[in-house]
Amino acid sequence: MKVARRAHVPPFAVMEILAAANARRAAGEHVLNLCAGEPSTGASDVVRQRAVDLLTAGDLGYTESLGAPGLRAAIAAHYAHTYGVDVDPARVAVTTGSSGGFVLAFLAAFDVGDRVALARPGYPAYANILTALGVEVVDLPCGPEQRYQPTVAQLEALDRPVDGLVVASPANPTGTMIEPDELTALARWCGTHGVRLVSDEIYHGITYPDASGSTPATATAAAHLHDGAVVVNSFSKYWAMTGWRLGWLVLPDDLVGPVDALAGNVALCPPALAQHAGVAAFSAEGMAAARANVERYAASRALLLERLPDLGWDPVAPADGAFYLYGDVSASGLDSVTWCARLLDEAGVALTPGTDFDPLHGRDWVRLSFASAPEVVAEAVDRIVAWQRTL
Amino acid sequence: MKVARRAHVPPFAVMEILAAANARRAAGEHVLNLCAGEPSTGASDVVRQRAVDLLTAGDLGYTESLGAPGLRAAIAAHYAHTYGVDVDPARVAVTTGSSGGFVLAFLAAFDVGDRVALARPGYPAYANILTALGVEVVDLPCGPEQRYQPTVAQLEALDRPVDGLVVASPANPTGTMIEPDELTALARWCGTHGVRLVSDEIYHGITYPDASGSTPATATAAAHLHDGAVVVNSFSKYWAMTGWRLGWLVLPDDLVGPVDALAGNVALCPPALAQHAGVAAFSAEGMAAARANVERYAASRALLLERLPDLGWDPVAPADGAFYLYGDVSASGLDSVTWCARLLDEAGVALTPGTDFDPLHGRDWVRLSFASAPEVVAEAVDRIVAWQRTL
Repeated sequence: MKVARRAHVPPFAVMEILAAANARRAAGEHVLNLCAGEPSTGASDVVRQRAVDLLTAGDLGYTESLGAPGLRAAIAAHYAHTYGVDVDPARVAVTTGSSGGFVLAFLAAFDVGDRVALARPGYPAYANILTALGVEVVDLPCGPEQRYQPTVAQLEALDRPVDGLVVASPANPTGTMIEPDELTALARWCGTHGVRLVSDEIYHGITYPDASGSTPATATAAAHLHDGAVVVNSFSKYWAMTGWRLGWLVLPDDLVGPVDALAGNVALCPPALAQHAGVAAFSAEGMAAARANVERYAASRALLLERLPDLGWDPVAPADGAFYLYGDVSASGLDSVTWCARLLDEAGVALTPGTDFDPLHGRDWVRLSFASAPEVVAEAVDRIVAWQRTL
Repeated sequence: MKVARRAHVPPFAVMEILAAANARRAAGEHVLNLCAGEPSTGASDVVRQRAVDLLTAGDLGYTESLGAPGLRAAIAAHYAHTYGVDVDPARVAVTTGSSGGFVLAFLAAFDVGDRVALARPGYPAYANILTALGVEVVDLPCGPEQRYQPTVAQLEALDRPVDGLVVASPANPTGTMIEPDELTALARWCGTHGVRLVSDEIYHGITYPDASGSTPATATAAAHLHDGAVVVNSFSKYWAMTGWRLGWLVLPDDLVGPVDALAGNVALCPPALAQHAGVAAFSAEGMAAARANVERYAASRALLLERLPDLGWDPVAPADGAFYLYGDVSASGLDSVTWCARLLDEAGVALTPGTDFDPLHGRDWVRLSFASAPEVVAEAVDRIVAWQRTL
């Protein structure tokens, strides 16, 4: 029987590494997993306790399609506190993780045959979801010279117009950020040209002090909503709530109704327990737990940057934010899929081959996630450095 | 800025009724909500307790895209116990509610421009999701004479071939079922004609003894997986876990890989806590709680059938299963949208207009959900009968 052509999604190389890592772990080996983009700490105690209370005495039925009013209000308040941006709760759509948010935003904004531009390297699900929905992906090659982020100049130089642009800052896999001025310029350009900007901000809050000791500002496209931009965010990374499947969109006025109608059909509503408990993520305790996680990542990052000369990867993307180190390992003479398979096999460390993020040049690159505990990252670096000497 | 044409999903009439009902309730009025397809009991104690335990000491990170292995095995075992059907756990895909299951199944099976047949009246999300994904919906008008269910004869009579057929048994909004022989015939016809059968079985287990006292068999299309059928199911109805967003697919071999790849991109994984706790739904206590809920629905249904002459709706679909009574109220001289608005306004009872389920004849019909407590249903019927006399 026929299988849909659009179901031919390229498999993730990381899944093979994960399966191999799990098999080795099951066999009793001490494997260090630095391939998943997942904080090892999990949800904060205050969120867990709220969930326990709700399980004892709460209503866990369907919520409104756009989310529980209390959570939508808490998310809107977060924009006021964190960015000084006034967001009407009516523009907030709670989603089933950012994944659910991307599906809804793409369905609401783009028709079959529309064209959407994406930076390469980038998070592979953008392209895979768009393709499954019949949208054409337009590749924006983004190298070290532009800090792996798209520019207005690139958009200007496109030979055919596009209907949308997806940006991510901090980005996966590179960790690089779009400067506030540049995000403003991109949002203005998109607004002027009728191009829907979708801004993935799931790594917001996970940023590191620069050499001068000041933490770089993370600009939110929510400040540019008058231009029609869509903001995507999630509780998975900053609040370490991966398996809870909770995220949100901040929508421009024209997409609120369409997303509401689509959400009622494709999702009904996001998980109720996660929504009601998720309000506690914005409490003083919830925010303190998130900041403590970022301090852990910062410690791991400092260690990694110190060991960069020993690692010898070149170039390495500047890990301004998120919890990834993306480096070129082609000097090893191995392609990254082989490199990662052998690293796991010979040294018990799981990293992700760059092929998941860049179909063209990914065989030169690997991604190391430092969302695990700092001591795990430290031991992994020791093992990688020692293993590289054996090549 | 452009909004996608596919985002123009027809709004649900029930949402307006719900909003009006909530407003009246907030104003202190005693409103009886019989419009939502949602059990009022919520998840069983054993599932809630398992969730509490996991919140205290469990890993709530991402699971595999196709679901946690323990839950996939438990679902497969459920087919052996309940239907005597041997299902390989590798064919089970855990999904984010049946909604998430439909999106994945439709993406995996149907391309843009494909044609999929649906019974009318029916659950509106089938058509709305398919349309959003660029699939053409082919209407199968199903009236009282065929118990509101599609037949092989109808498929044979189509002037152009279809790529898929969605069936639901028991169905929403009618509660009618497809006899096991007829489901076999439909599955065979689909298999022979290269038509992908998608069988919505979310109301399985919610069926009622017939006049002879025997409960009718619910046939699962899982028995016909060799024909390429996809089964959709959910923890929302039988196990009363609506807000948990947990469902599953039983897939034919050729769709397992595609659904896995798609799920990793459009969903990452279903909610982890719901998955791990959901295993307990299949425990002796979990199943006993589900059966007790069905007994409540049976009591409400018996009361409704007894009061049918007083209600005077004609025809009324045979409520063989699920928890809905679907009846023609056109003798009132009111269209159902007005009828429902006035019933809520004048008698404080919320029902759903048939327009949500049947764009052609829905103005004659209303749907009453008896998933609430039997005493609520009883009072609602008293109010409806009294109100109808005032018309």
